[in-house]
Amino acid sequence: MAAPRTTREGPGHGAASPSVTSRALRVLEVFAPSAPVRTLTDIARHTGLPLTTAHRLVGELTRWGALERDGEGGYRIGLRLWEVASLAPRGLGLRELALPQLSDLVHVTGENAQLAVREDLSVVYVERLAGRGAVPVLTRVAGRFALTPTGVGRVLLAHAPPEVQERALSGPPARCTPRTECDPGALRRALAEVRRTGVAICEGQVTLDSVSVAAPVHGPEGTVVAAVSVVAHLGRVEPHTLVPLVRVAARGISRALGADTAPDLTGPVRAAPSGSATHR
Amino acid sequence: MAAPRTTREGPGHGAASPSVTSRALRVLEVFAPSAPVRTLTDIARHTGLPLTTAHRLVGELTRWGALERDGEGGYRIGLRLWEVASLAPRGLGLRELALPQLSDLVHVTGENAQLAVREDLSVVYVERLAGRGAVPVLTRVAGRFALTPTGVGRVLLAHAPPEVQERALSGPPARCTPRTECDPGALRRALAEVRRTGVAICEGQVTLDSVSVAAPVHGPEGTVVAAVSVVAHLGRVEPHTLVPLVRVAARGISRALGADTAPDLTGPVRAAPSGSATHR
Repeated sequence: MAAPRTTREGPGHGAASPSVTSRALRVLEVFAPSAPVRTLTDIARHTGLPLTTAHRLVGELTRWGALERDGEGGYRIGLRLWEVASLAPRGLGLRELALPQLSDLVHVTGENAQLAVREDLSVVYVERLAGRGAVPVLTRVAGRFALTPTGVGRVLLAHAPPEVQERALSGPPARCTPRTECDPGALRRALAEVRRTGVAICEGQVTLDSVSVAAPVHGPEGTVVAAVSVVAHLGRVEPHTLVPLVRVAARGISRALGADTAPDLTGPVRAAPSGSATHR
Repeated sequence: MAAPRTTREGPGHGAASPSVTSRALRVLEVFAPSAPVRTLTDIARHTGLPLTTAHRLVGELTRWGALERDGEGGYRIGLRLWEVASLAPRGLGLRELALPQLSDLVHVTGENAQLAVREDLSVVYVERLAGRGAVPVLTRVAGRFALTPTGVGRVLLAHAPPEVQERALSGPPARCTPRTECDPGALRRALAEVRRTGVAICEGQVTLDSVSVAAPVHGPEGTVVAAVSVVAHLGRVEPHTLVPLVRVAARGISRALGADTAPDLTGPVRAAPSGSATHR
């Protein structure tokens, strides 16, 4: 289930007397995966801007390269904006560092490898690679998804500030399948288990035929900055066999980010000889 | 050799009385691969804006998510800008469609597979995947490069409007190695050969130990919208053996884009039985 569109709305627009900058940014917001091409009329209507204002802003954005004209009178997001945006450390930068480990996961499992970060109450997928015959997934690179049903989302939420956890658990639950866990108490216990074991295992939570095994990626300060997962066919693979693979990949990416991956980094499970804790 | 920075400058800034929009965009331009984190002082200095104006613009961009604060008083490109920019059809959209073919090229060759588009007088790399042991390359996803020394650049230039070709050949040549072809007449003949044969083969043009074999990707209207290449160790692989692989990948990506890949699409070479024309 995709995160509600409203989670993308930050402060700074919609308020009284928006600045020119925020109006230009509002033009960019009109574009969506379901609407990658927009006419000037679309843009004026969806931003609520007068047509002349929209025309001027679109002209400026197009001259700079933030928008491009298609051949048929429409506008689309421009390559130059993508070039600049690719400098986002949590976007392409993270992806480039993680690509070797993600490729290895796909190569070894034949399934999906995903890398994601948290943006407020959503997962944002930074990369997704799929092996031939991998279980179909609903996610999309640069797309958002709800936190609680996904492996990467539970890892990210388990390590988020308590205030974020409370908001995520008090909102309307994201139900994707009849098996999706929506009870706040059960989810709270699941998050505690993620912190205790160092991995999240989600069976049938997003689609009935898939299982996600996810582990945290640490940044240089030791905080959890991303999560990596394998999403595989439920029933065809024993999830516990994926745990060491995903953990090793997460440690490799953490190391590439400059994290200290000494044994005690992710808590007692890694240090204890009885490391094979029971995962739900 | 990276394309000169000046090719990134479009009209609409630097002129008298820049608009607020263009000033906000100028803030984004301050970020570069070599400078992914900037302080407010950096931003004011590089944009030429007064500190108070820079402070206000940076605040607005940060509230929206186009910029993010790092932990140490710096700013970086924000994840939300990357999310929106990922809707660029020539960026992530193209990459997603092409990923299976690129993966296959890497899997089969063990070398680099690249996908690129042209932006004025530069190549922009949309994707780059590397096999283990692939020859090192100088390119970067979302990075720019000169057109004439690269296989993808020659393919894109060969199919560009004559005015673009003339500007590319009349500017200062991009010399990367002692073997880089810089003579406009020789380059003009090389472009004609690319049009005739349907592929570009560049040996030792970017690095002395690499060979690039590139082919055009067609859009729904039949125009060349991108180029795909394999960059391999020069001397370890016979470039002609890569030609069919790269052409098949280019056709697969073209088909995924909605192009008609009937036999006559790319000219006489494909239709003629004597398709194995001599490539330089």
